[in-house]
Amino acid sequence: MDPTRAEAEALDAADPLAPFRDRFVVPDDDLVYLDGNSLGRLPKATVAALERTVRDEWGGDLIRSWDTWLDLPAELGDLLAATVLGARPGEVVVSDSTTVNLYKLAAAALRERPGAVVTDDDDFPTDRFVLAALAEDHGRELRTIGTDLDAGLDPARLAAALDGDVALVSLSHVAYRSGALLDLAEVTDAVHRAGALVLWDLSHSVGAVPVDLAAAGADLAVGCTYKYLNGGPGSPAFLYVREGLELRSPVQGWFGVPDQFAMGPAYEPKPGAARFLTGTPPVLGLRAVEEGVRLVAEAGIAAVRAKGVALGQLAVRLADAAGLRVASPRDPARRGNHVTIHHPDAEALCRKLVASGVVPDFRTPERIRLGFAPLTTRFTDVWDGVVRLQELAPG
Amino acid sequence: MDPTRAEAEALDAADPLAPFRDRFVVPDDDLVYLDGNSLGRLPKATVAALERTVRDEWGGDLIRSWDTWLDLPAELGDLLAATVLGARPGEVVVSDSTTVNLYKLAAAALRERPGAVVTDDDDFPTDRFVLAALAEDHGRELRTIGTDLDAGLDPARLAAALDGDVALVSLSHVAYRSGALLDLAEVTDAVHRAGALVLWDLSHSVGAVPVDLAAAGADLAVGCTYKYLNGGPGSPAFLYVREGLELRSPVQGWFGVPDQFAMGPAYEPKPGAARFLTGTPPVLGLRAVEEGVRLVAEAGIAAVRAKGVALGQLAVRLADAAGLRVASPRDPARRGNHVTIHHPDAEALCRKLVASGVVPDFRTPERIRLGFAPLTTRFTDVWDGVVRLQELAPG
Repeated sequence: MDPTRAEAEALDAADPLAPFRDRFVVPDDDLVYLDGNSLGRLPKATVAALERTVRDEWGGDLIRSWDTWLDLPAELGDLLAATVLGARPGEVVVSDSTTVNLYKLAAAALRERPGAVVTDDDDFPTDRFVLAALAEDHGRELRTIGTDLDAGLDPARLAAALDGDVALVSLSHVAYRSGALLDLAEVTDAVHRAGALVLWDLSHSVGAVPVDLAAAGADLAVGCTYKYLNGGPGSPAFLYVREGLELRSPVQGWFGVPDQFAMGPAYEPKPGAARFLTGTPPVLGLRAVEEGVRLVAEAGIAAVRAKGVALGQLAVRLADAAGLRVASPRDPARRGNHVTIHHPDAEALCRKLVASGVVPDFRTPERIRLGFAPLTTRFTDVWDGVVRLQELAPG
Repeated sequence: MDPTRAEAEALDAADPLAPFRDRFVVPDDDLVYLDGNSLGRLPKATVAALERTVRDEWGGDLIRSWDTWLDLPAELGDLLAATVLGARPGEVVVSDSTTVNLYKLAAAALRERPGAVVTDDDDFPTDRFVLAALAEDHGRELRTIGTDLDAGLDPARLAAALDGDVALVSLSHVAYRSGALLDLAEVTDAVHRAGALVLWDLSHSVGAVPVDLAAAGADLAVGCTYKYLNGGPGSPAFLYVREGLELRSPVQGWFGVPDQFAMGPAYEPKPGAARFLTGTPPVLGLRAVEEGVRLVAEAGIAAVRAKGVALGQLAVRLADAAGLRVASPRDPARRGNHVTIHHPDAEALCRKLVASGVVPDFRTPERIRLGFAPLTTRFTDVWDGVVRLQELAPG
């Protein structure tokens, strides 16, 4: 039976996370925003934090504020580690962009290990681009596993590519296009058995899907903070390096040394992930990340995931009822936090949806991505969004 | 004759740039801020711009704002090129930190050219650290020219190091410690005659000292925006690549391709400096840079430099009168925009100065850096600051 709007309303009424929507700035309550997986909404606390940072810390205390700002990349890293990454203190810092972090960690791994670089051919473009150039510059083979656009990477095909001559396997935990979710622990274990290091891109899972890096024994990870962590446009990314893994950053920056104001003659790296810090960190972005992460931590990742799964299942049922083709894994245990619809007119449909007050994401080829932000997306948003899509889609 | 406070007051009264101070947030008018070369003050326009960006663009328009944000790194680059760098459209982008930009450009140069890396042993730490790791990773000799801490790099010693087997010379236009200023055109020419590429770090000159990259024929440059360009703590840096110099970035990121949302299989670089863009750019920082640069452009770099020289000369006269040792070039044509005082108790003196409402910078070894921001520093600030220093310095 088709889900009714009344059913969506009932789900909203029973939703324990519903009050969190009021913690965000929502100037247009009628907007159906299904793109929280591209840019999370603005927390009210962030408006206040940025005002303090700009007016009081920058405008008022000026350079003296660096006493406070200096440790933000490591402090925020520890906050992420404890709340959404399942990592230990010192294993995570907030720094640079996901692209630059992926580059630093992959280059550091290749410096230590001989062998090929393995990824999949549907990995996020910036990841594929970075790895291709690194493989070329290091004279390594780049093994690219063919991947189904809807089902994601088949672990059996990955296993076949792991022949003992592999240095590094770099994969996304959740595929940006289909939302396909890999088993972090299982894949990490398979990579380790082949004698390689694993580098996870957590951009599409962090803050929405439980991640336990320490339990999985993962070596390296990166991810962005502007999606489910609500850090704002272009907010700084994070990187994780497993305790005990002593790598050298290719970019030896002054924020990676224990006392950067000693300005000594020789580079001496900080312990832990902090050696991968580079230049002066973006303070405004860091402050925004802080507030965004705290909201997810307060809600709790288990509750966030439970609601994310419920939102996704409602979308799948609605798509089925509307005769729309779901281009994501149907099993929620194999899917991250977005549901993708395939339609030959996807690009034009996305434009029409946006014009009608429903904001999804267009993705090549012919796909409409519906992203749910469990702290702000209502079940009625999902209902309204998919029904609008059905109305606009040529029959 | 000692400069009197009345003389400083007269200079303020006659200062054509004096009205610019009112364009900045100055909550404590009595604070003697002599650290604009570390962190420039907060422009009032930036408060408004950030509020718009946060509330309206992020909070209101959400992902739809990327239509506007996407071109900011290149648009701001063109603004910097036209107003403070003497560069052509397409030669400059705003991206990452100075450290990461220096890494990208130096690595790209080494990929193209065989030979040694040349720098000086008093260059800014992050520059030295980055170059040392790159030279090691590329199997190159690192030639480090011995430099006088007060007088800066001697061009004759640089010439002696340029033997035709050099790939890249990386130098700071203005030395961070002494303020010593190199002749950009002359040094660039000497490097080119040796068959090498030159990479300038403009962090301590941009927005304070005239820079004409095109006239000098400079190859590569980087610099930060949070000093004289008032971009705020950790605001994104810039990079410059001379038109016609076709290099490949080591960090092939998705913002470096012409249409990043095509998400195609292969990396294809943008033309010009934009190929050195990496990940998602920090939008809040970019918006702040925009306002900060506009203020310098409005004042005009010639007027800014003229006032900077006058502030510096007043500081030198006051230091002489107080019996303090100037650890900077005395000729303003050989000095950037700060004046450094050597004192055996410099570190303790800096703490006392800050406690008394005068904010300079301590720099190893035994140096107090007095930085002037021509748009906000008053001649009376210089008078008050140096006189306070004289009072606090053990006789």
